[in-house]
Amino acid sequence: MYAILRQHIEKVVALTDDEFDFVAAQFVNKKFSRRQYLFQEDEPVHFTYFVIKGLLKLTLNDEAGDEHILAFAMEDWWESDFQAFYRQSKATMALQCLEDTEVLCLSLDGYNNLCSKLPAMAYFFLTKANGGHISAQQRILSLLKGNAAQRYEEFIKRYPSLVQRVPKRLLASYLGVSRETLSRLY
Amino acid sequence: MYAILRQHIEKVVALTDDEFDFVAAQFVNKKFSRRQYLFQEDEPVHFTYFVIKGLLKLTLNDEAGDEHILAFAMEDWWESDFQAFYRQSKATMALQCLEDTEVLCLSLDGYNNLCSKLPAMAYFFLTKANGGHISAQQRILSLLKGNAAQRYEEFIKRYPSLVQRVPKRLLASYLGVSRETLSRLY
Repeated sequence: MYAILRQHIEKVVALTDDEFDFVAAQFVNKKFSRRQYLFQEDEPVHFTYFVIKGLLKLTLNDEAGDEHILAFAMEDWWESDFQAFYRQSKATMALQCLEDTEVLCLSLDGYNNLCSKLPAMAYFFLTKANGGHISAQQRILSLLKGNAAQRYEEFIKRYPSLVQRVPKRLLASYLGVSRETLSRLY
Repeated sequence: MYAILRQHIEKVVALTDDEFDFVAAQFVNKKFSRRQYLFQEDEPVHFTYFVIKGLLKLTLNDEAGDEHILAFAMEDWWESDFQAFYRQSKATMALQCLEDTEVLCLSLDGYNNLCSKLPAMAYFFLTKANGGHISAQQRILSLLKGNAAQRYEEFIKRYPSLVQRVPKRLLASYLGVSRETLSRLY
């Protein structure tokens, strides 16, 4: 699975074997079963997770008890409650497996280690953060435009493989539409 | 105005005088009048902008001709059409001044120069990108929760000084509510 991580990083920056050994040494490998939580609300967030295999949802429960889906994460994606991770505060979200999942876990110490000792890794994480920021902006725009059909079409176009794997109920929640609306589109 | 930039950067990382001279040399200073555009849709996006003074809105016009507000930017904020800037593609958004505005402009060459030659600056931009990603996620959540009153309260709490400066019509658009709804809250 470290080969998958190396391939993923080397799409952005090249690393020597020694450098990659140093990178790999910062990660811990973990497996979770379907329905297991990597963290829940009010828990400390020790890691940012690189998904080797599986599918997860990042959610927030509001005061009324409704669940809102901020993101799905699958192979080759990074996921965490980033605010809680970077600030080492308690989670406001929960990260739960929708399928059996295998991840590589990186602590904040490990992250800072990589950024300070390997400029290439600082640049890699900068590229990922910029990409994450851009994706989040695109999602804001699609929510503001408020056209459910268009939102659904954009989702299919951007994440074709996710549509097959994500339960319809969760997809409706992610898109901010009712299940009935989604059924009409589907 | 370079003193403002230095203060802003040194909230995150320390720089020597020589290092800051190198940083400052990558920027160009520009002034814009109220209503002027820094860029419009379908134009190339040459710069990311650090706001020294003033107020701007980042907007997208949809097919129906409705304007959606992705972000406001004021003193001490960075703004651009980041997707277009990093990928050097055409703007899908427009950045327009709501007040007379002064900015420091950084090109992608300048940005890459800073990241590759000064590890401290790569770390500074990483911190900013992570912050931008987190803010965008917070906004997604507030849009998904879909409670206009709560959304407005969160906005006041996070950006108290903006509420005074942004026209109500634009604030309503940013929050994704009608002007009538906003008037009831206000």
